[in-house]
Amino acid sequence: MAIAKVHVNVEEQAKKAKKAARQLSLLTSEEKDEALMDMAEALENEYQSILNANESDLQAGIAKGYEAAFMDRLKLTKERIQDFAEGLRDVAKLNDPTGRIVSSWALDNGLQVEKVTVPLGVIGMIYEARPNVTVDATGLALKSGNSIILKGGSSAIHSNKAIVEVIHAALSSTKIPEDAVQFISTTDREATQQLFTMKEHIDVLIPRGGASLINSVVQNATVPVLETGVGNCHIYIDKDADPVKAMKILVNAKTDRPAVCNAAETVIVHKEWLNSHLSLLIDTLNEHQIAVHGDRTAVALIPNALPAGEEDWSSEYLSLDLAVKTVGNMEEAIDHIDQYGTKHSEAIITENKENAETFMNLVDASALYHNASTRFTDGGALGFGAEIGISTQKLHARGPMGLPALTTVKFKMRGNGQVR
Amino acid sequence: MAIAKVHVNVEEQAKKAKKAARQLSLLTSEEKDEALMDMAEALENEYQSILNANESDLQAGIAKGYEAAFMDRLKLTKERIQDFAEGLRDVAKLNDPTGRIVSSWALDNGLQVEKVTVPLGVIGMIYEARPNVTVDATGLALKSGNSIILKGGSSAIHSNKAIVEVIHAALSSTKIPEDAVQFISTTDREATQQLFTMKEHIDVLIPRGGASLINSVVQNATVPVLETGVGNCHIYIDKDADPVKAMKILVNAKTDRPAVCNAAETVIVHKEWLNSHLSLLIDTLNEHQIAVHGDRTAVALIPNALPAGEEDWSSEYLSLDLAVKTVGNMEEAIDHIDQYGTKHSEAIITENKENAETFMNLVDASALYHNASTRFTDGGALGFGAEIGISTQKLHARGPMGLPALTTVKFKMRGNGQVR
Repeated sequence: MAIAKVHVNVEEQAKKAKKAARQLSLLTSEEKDEALMDMAEALENEYQSILNANESDLQAGIAKGYEAAFMDRLKLTKERIQDFAEGLRDVAKLNDPTGRIVSSWALDNGLQVEKVTVPLGVIGMIYEARPNVTVDATGLALKSGNSIILKGGSSAIHSNKAIVEVIHAALSSTKIPEDAVQFISTTDREATQQLFTMKEHIDVLIPRGGASLINSVVQNATVPVLETGVGNCHIYIDKDADPVKAMKILVNAKTDRPAVCNAAETVIVHKEWLNSHLSLLIDTLNEHQIAVHGDRTAVALIPNALPAGEEDWSSEYLSLDLAVKTVGNMEEAIDHIDQYGTKHSEAIITENKENAETFMNLVDASALYHNASTRFTDGGALGFGAEIGISTQKLHARGPMGLPALTTVKFKMRGNGQVR
Repeated sequence: MAIAKVHVNVEEQAKKAKKAARQLSLLTSEEKDEALMDMAEALENEYQSILNANESDLQAGIAKGYEAAFMDRLKLTKERIQDFAEGLRDVAKLNDPTGRIVSSWALDNGLQVEKVTVPLGVIGMIYEARPNVTVDATGLALKSGNSIILKGGSSAIHSNKAIVEVIHAALSSTKIPEDAVQFISTTDREATQQLFTMKEHIDVLIPRGGASLINSVVQNATVPVLETGVGNCHIYIDKDADPVKAMKILVNAKTDRPAVCNAAETVIVHKEWLNSHLSLLIDTLNEHQIAVHGDRTAVALIPNALPAGEEDWSSEYLSLDLAVKTVGNMEEAIDHIDQYGTKHSEAIITENKENAETFMNLVDASALYHNASTRFTDGGALGFGAEIGISTQKLHARGPMGLPALTTVKFKMRGNGQVR
């Protein structure tokens, strides 16, 4: 009975979202932007109610013994809520991605053809603990004329609910219907499962979180998915790599923010380079307290290195651990990336331009780097103004996804009786 | 045992296709075009071997008692094979969709960012009886730098095999590796199932055929799918429709080629228009031998009309049958399309421009028509030069898909040591 009830509620919410999407698609850019500005102001004004709700989540988290990094992502402050509001104002300032005429032409018979960008319709956002996703994703969805269904992690349920209440209250005096923002308030897993298959009501699912969440959505959803995030990224140090650039980039890609998807997880080192620069590499790794898991050659050369297994090559550490693979040529490096990479971000460090171009042409990933850190795969860093996630799939959108990824196209044909 | 064997073979073929895709991605446009021209010549030269194989399929089809329309799609002639060759030459003449710089910019730190189109990689084509798909899809895949795995219907197995043998022989003296074209020669359904889940080797599946084939792929595949084709298209005759345009467009959309996806299946008629033009509508339907399945009002007014049920509103007839729905206003028409349409092609006939724009804005479909036939939703008719199918999904590609739908993008970043 409980399950059937959830099903009905979630389906009702999805239907409301779809209906609201139709209204939303008719609003002007100004009407949408005004609503975003009102939402921002409301979040700033009502921060205390959000902090109170957040406290409930924090207490529950402490009781459950969550680790410090997790608690840090969960914790809100007045300043963080002000950042949410500023984020909404930034999104309001961006160009409206809908209503853009991609191309237009006339057929010989006079039929006018216009290809124009339109909202996707209803976006289902499935995410883990971070409450900022509730605000960011809602802002991006509404700006691009889409309704959104929010299914956040249960550990942030009170925070998310409080945020959505503030948003709903703010929307009530704007042109955007409140129903355009649906919050799944049950923590029942069944609710998520229902979202997976509601093809009639939901146009796309966007999972944001760890590999297991993303895989669960990809494996089970019949609604189309925008797959984001898992980054098993490699830095390949070629025979002709400049040692200063190589170490600077490796350290940045590994240690700047080890827990993010564009951090490096494996360094692949050409054996000739390694022979010439072994002590530099060892000193650098030691200095930055990077723990090495190496192949046989690496373990023999690098003090304290642990032997690496399949798990090391295929997983994200998201920590200061680093897998070290040694190769005799660039082809071996490309083959290794081909086998274990997640098509996110891959870098080659070399002064050999031909090798760099071959690497960037042959490696199959969303972002390829020559002599730069993989950390730049990020909508903010690339100047997109906002990011809904980083796509690791090839269809629709690849790499950091800004507002245009939340649109599709329509062909509008205007005639005066044309037939074939 | 047999199933395991098939699995291994199909997986081996998929691996070969993936490896070939890497080689293919490095070829120049000229090298690919020359190979297409050689394929065209070989098909013309070797037409007799293809016709011999086709005879086997035709004999088997007669034995199985297939209907005439099916046999006609299956049957090849020297002229049809020459058309295949001409089709390849036309594709060779199109612009290469890969290697196009979509945008490029530099960050303040000097990092050069380039967003460039690249092949998808490996395309899995799952289709029914028509042997022309074997040639068309292969030409489009190779032109866009992709390997292709062909899984055609068992009724055309001999024809398809003979065509691929000719293509393989032609490719052997070109820069395109033969392995770029893989033909699944078993008719075992298990082989198709294997293609559904080979995410490591196949980048996209494109099903072409009837609704049950397409649904089977969409429901069961974990490989991303480009959904094509099912078209439950509507013509809405508004209160202010010009009667001459309305009848000309309705007749064309219903009768020009009733079995194709952009044919009309339901006409939605405003009751005021119907009152004024009832005899014209009845005469037109009679003249073109269109069989009517109507709602209560339509059945009461149109002689010989059968009552329509859920099945009539929700399915494609693909014949000279037509569902007739009557409405009191445009909103009812839009609601009906929203409930039963397949987001393919929808038309409004009216002299009221405001209504036309509202209809085109609110109806969620790939192609919206004002005063023109839905039959124009076709890559050829719209001047795309070639078409891999008509997408009814919103992600990646919508509407008729030309060569660009077979590409994705890569971000290439060129730096000199940039870190974040």
